[in-house]
Amino acid sequence: MPRLERSEFGEKCLRPFGDIVDRFAGGDGNRDRNVMRLWVIKASVLLPETDTSAFTIPGRLTIQDVAKRRAASGKLIAGAAAVADIHAFRGITQHNHKTEAKRWEYRMTAEAKTRGGSSLKNAARYLKTPGLISLGGGLPSSEYFPVSELGIRVPDLSELDAASGWLTAGKHDMAEGKSMFDIATAFQYGQGHGAAQLLRWLVEHTEIVHDPPYADWSCTMTVGSTSAFDMALRMFAKPGDWLLSEEYTFPAMVETAAPLGVKVAAVRMDAYGMLADSLDEVLSNWDYAARDGPKPFLMYTVPTGQNPTGSTQTLQRRKEVYAVAQKHDLYILEDEPYYFLQMQPYTGPNAPDVSPPKSNDEFLRSLVPSYLSLDTDGRVMRMDSFSKIIAPGTRCGWITASEEVCERYRTHADLSTQGPSGVSQLMLFILLEEHWGHAGYLDWLVHIRLEYTARRDVILDACEKYMPKEIVSWNPPMAGMFLWLKINWHKHPTSTSKTLLEVEDELFQKVIGHGTLLMKGSWFLGEKGSADNEMFLRATYAAAPFEQIREAVGRLGEALREAFGLRALSNGA
Amino acid sequence: MPRLERSEFGEKCLRPFGDIVDRFAGGDGNRDRNVMRLWVIKASVLLPETDTSAFTIPGRLTIQDVAKRRAASGKLIAGAAAVADIHAFRGITQHNHKTEAKRWEYRMTAEAKTRGGSSLKNAARYLKTPGLISLGGGLPSSEYFPVSELGIRVPDLSELDAASGWLTAGKHDMAEGKSMFDIATAFQYGQGHGAAQLLRWLVEHTEIVHDPPYADWSCTMTVGSTSAFDMALRMFAKPGDWLLSEEYTFPAMVETAAPLGVKVAAVRMDAYGMLADSLDEVLSNWDYAARDGPKPFLMYTVPTGQNPTGSTQTLQRRKEVYAVAQKHDLYILEDEPYYFLQMQPYTGPNAPDVSPPKSNDEFLRSLVPSYLSLDTDGRVMRMDSFSKIIAPGTRCGWITASEEVCERYRTHADLSTQGPSGVSQLMLFILLEEHWGHAGYLDWLVHIRLEYTARRDVILDACEKYMPKEIVSWNPPMAGMFLWLKINWHKHPTSTSKTLLEVEDELFQKVIGHGTLLMKGSWFLGEKGSADNEMFLRATYAAAPFEQIREAVGRLGEALREAFGLRALSNGA
Repeated sequence: MPRLERSEFGEKCLRPFGDIVDRFAGGDGNRDRNVMRLWVIKASVLLPETDTSAFTIPGRLTIQDVAKRRAASGKLIAGAAAVADIHAFRGITQHNHKTEAKRWEYRMTAEAKTRGGSSLKNAARYLKTPGLISLGGGLPSSEYFPVSELGIRVPDLSELDAASGWLTAGKHDMAEGKSMFDIATAFQYGQGHGAAQLLRWLVEHTEIVHDPPYADWSCTMTVGSTSAFDMALRMFAKPGDWLLSEEYTFPAMVETAAPLGVKVAAVRMDAYGMLADSLDEVLSNWDYAARDGPKPFLMYTVPTGQNPTGSTQTLQRRKEVYAVAQKHDLYILEDEPYYFLQMQPYTGPNAPDVSPPKSNDEFLRSLVPSYLSLDTDGRVMRMDSFSKIIAPGTRCGWITASEEVCERYRTHADLSTQGPSGVSQLMLFILLEEHWGHAGYLDWLVHIRLEYTARRDVILDACEKYMPKEIVSWNPPMAGMFLWLKINWHKHPTSTSKTLLEVEDELFQKVIGHGTLLMKGSWFLGEKGSADNEMFLRATYAAAPFEQIREAVGRLGEALREAFGLRALSNGA
Repeated sequence: MPRLERSEFGEKCLRPFGDIVDRFAGGDGNRDRNVMRLWVIKASVLLPETDTSAFTIPGRLTIQDVAKRRAASGKLIAGAAAVADIHAFRGITQHNHKTEAKRWEYRMTAEAKTRGGSSLKNAARYLKTPGLISLGGGLPSSEYFPVSELGIRVPDLSELDAASGWLTAGKHDMAEGKSMFDIATAFQYGQGHGAAQLLRWLVEHTEIVHDPPYADWSCTMTVGSTSAFDMALRMFAKPGDWLLSEEYTFPAMVETAAPLGVKVAAVRMDAYGMLADSLDEVLSNWDYAARDGPKPFLMYTVPTGQNPTGSTQTLQRRKEVYAVAQKHDLYILEDEPYYFLQMQPYTGPNAPDVSPPKSNDEFLRSLVPSYLSLDTDGRVMRMDSFSKIIAPGTRCGWITASEEVCERYRTHADLSTQGPSGVSQLMLFILLEEHWGHAGYLDWLVHIRLEYTARRDVILDACEKYMPKEIVSWNPPMAGMFLWLKINWHKHPTSTSKTLLEVEDELFQKVIGHGTLLMKGSWFLGEKGSADNEMFLRATYAAAPFEQIREAVGRLGEALREAFGLRALSNGA
């Protein structure tokens, strides 16, 4: 078996991917070598310090495999409120060689541990009795759903502006043999895990992209990751607990945790997000008395295109952080709304663009691996979201975690959200299963990738042009919606007489005075006082038209120059 | 001013509505007399013991008033994630003469009290600055929502089987002046209270039907009443607390409360639901030590078509229960999924039907008043649901309560559910606002009323025909989906050697053996051991086709006759 030597590629280039070389070196030589070649070809055109690409999970499920598996398993029949056989969606034998996830019951709250099943649902097993007439379940008849057909128009990727035909679902398409999902079923009461018809698609997609490396992984739908995080806290956190997170983090996360009595302990970051050393240091030196709470068990992270810093953890960083999580037995909440907003490498204002992925395989290989895909222990709950890639208003996402955790999650969902809206689910089913399929969805994601790349390039080019670099610095984001501008506030005229927060507010107002709104960096501090005297502003390039982005950055440059007493840009600049 | 005397109508007939007479007697004589006349006309054809009709809230908002109010307030403009001005939806001056709701903060949990606002949302106020370009909020651009049009077909009530045209919403209908709601807004992130466009409609509907008698009432959307109840518990209940409820109650309620450490204390019932005397007795004699918890503060009730008993509280009963709630300062969680499944009076198998309501006004007057409409103190959180009258899969409902409670609720929703699915909201908006309007929706509700009346009459007629009345008794349900069959199990051959639960299980299995599924009464006990040696089976007439309902009841009769050793019905029966 041929072995790949690190020296063949150069240590600097390989550093973020060293473990992959190790993994492949022991694998199937020929295929692994091909993968490595692809990786090397790609890596050679990238900035090695910021590349997150070039990783293939060996033996992972392909779209073709999904088609074969479905053909072998026969037609999916799932009526109103049917319990999904998630195990079967994953393929019966595919995961048998893997080890089972670690068990977490000893870490669960009383609330999570004591949830029982529904006594009424127990009666459902009698429904299989041949000839039985049920006067049991209190479900309304679908004849009283006042909608006979639901339709959407989905623009074609090749002709986004052209009108398309209606894609539809009727009320009784299942009974009429037209579809495996319909209004009578989707608009009825459902299971907390969501409808089997859409859940199967999500499980397959998860396996295609992440292929979790333990045996008993599972998926269950959410009404969005905000709710999923809330439910995860209720499963794992008690008042007085601490949660680990990036020092600059998603404020809604902090605001969800605070009323539950859960505080956020900051972990230091660099341009590639959370620092494993800092994580280890916080945990190894946990001061119970000073913190007035036990050593943290939960870690929250947005590894890709982090909000607000825009940072993306390299594979090497993820491995290091995961190792620390293993050392201290942490449970990781991986929040990944921006995972598919990974962009093309930034080549600078005057260099040619990198060609887009030529195939879905190449696209998938370009994605930085998730924590889920590294999770040999089953210590990750990954939260996936359609909010940034389909629409936030679907209020439909999903988690992937061990069956133990998913089972507790859906038991809670059964008695709270009852799963996502059936209207949303049916719309997503029409779009993802019936219209796009797995391949068409990946095409859509490539489209989004290129759109965000263009947006990101517009703001970076404008920054190159308009920012006073004496006082503003930034890292080109590789993923997500945010550009994180570091302000050297020590050069501000009042920096010796005013506090950081006072100067920050002055700048914030000055920028608004010049007709542009950015967010204050201090709003994103998870742990007040953890910021170490640094100042940031967050800009998003996700929504404004290109011309407005350029105009806004120009105004920002003017405002900062004025505030810091710098010379204005000449008109020609 | 003419006064109406009780003696004019007869005490028995008036008993359930006595307070209304009191109320009207002091009001505007002429109008009130007309109302009373209508009531008397209706009441004279009803069974006085089971009638819940004949109540009009004086001065309540009409559909015509809504149109005038809207015309006066101008066009509703609410963009992505706009905060709704709920106060304005209610009419500015309509409620000024009423007193403010009682404040409940002292009863709220730490979780509810400590919820803060979102720091990022504070930045939204700058968005009004003229000419401002925002690089602030992290909302995706609607150009990346892959749906350009959403459509539904809604059958016409007069031709339910005929194909209808598409009712549609486009992506940019608002910008194009075509509608006040569209995909770009509905599919975007939203507020926890739901979109202003649909919320206005819900507020108006609530005022038309209930007109809460205190000044600062408000509404906020939910993702369904199961979730609303879960969120209400997290607002008001601590582990170790007790919650009051009907002795037979909705199991999901008990199962939602249990993991939060909240137990259910049973209140006795009769054919008209919860007994005020029993409620008072439980509270007055609360034994802290035996219960190992404080005197209850929360009361849960399904006043109309209660699950599982099918009982509907009369107005008089509601007044009595509300008075006890005032005496002991309870907070009432009014769960009303079946409110609009109030049916025509049951006239028996061989009597002519009562004519349906001739107008929407007459229909509204026929409805038993809600707790909300009696709630002078603001001590009721009413949970409304579309599940039984539109479709469960919308996962969209709403609560009505004082602004203090609604504000805490939506602050929680902002950081958990984020409000109902925008796809559901847009679909409901098309249906309720653009297609039906308030009047068309009431027409739909009358349609549902008559459909359920027909279903209820089928099962009652079948029971008259097939049930062995020596051992089975029931009250004709006036609302809801359920028939509650009392079984005189003491006549069962093994009643002396077996327990109630053993005999119940034997009957349950026997009925299944005869090809019919009903639910065991004991599954619905909120407090185990509270049942006082009675046995029930719950049947629903909501879903099975008429012929199957008849067949199932026939089988049930056979099974019971066999189990109790009674003679079989002759074929001709």
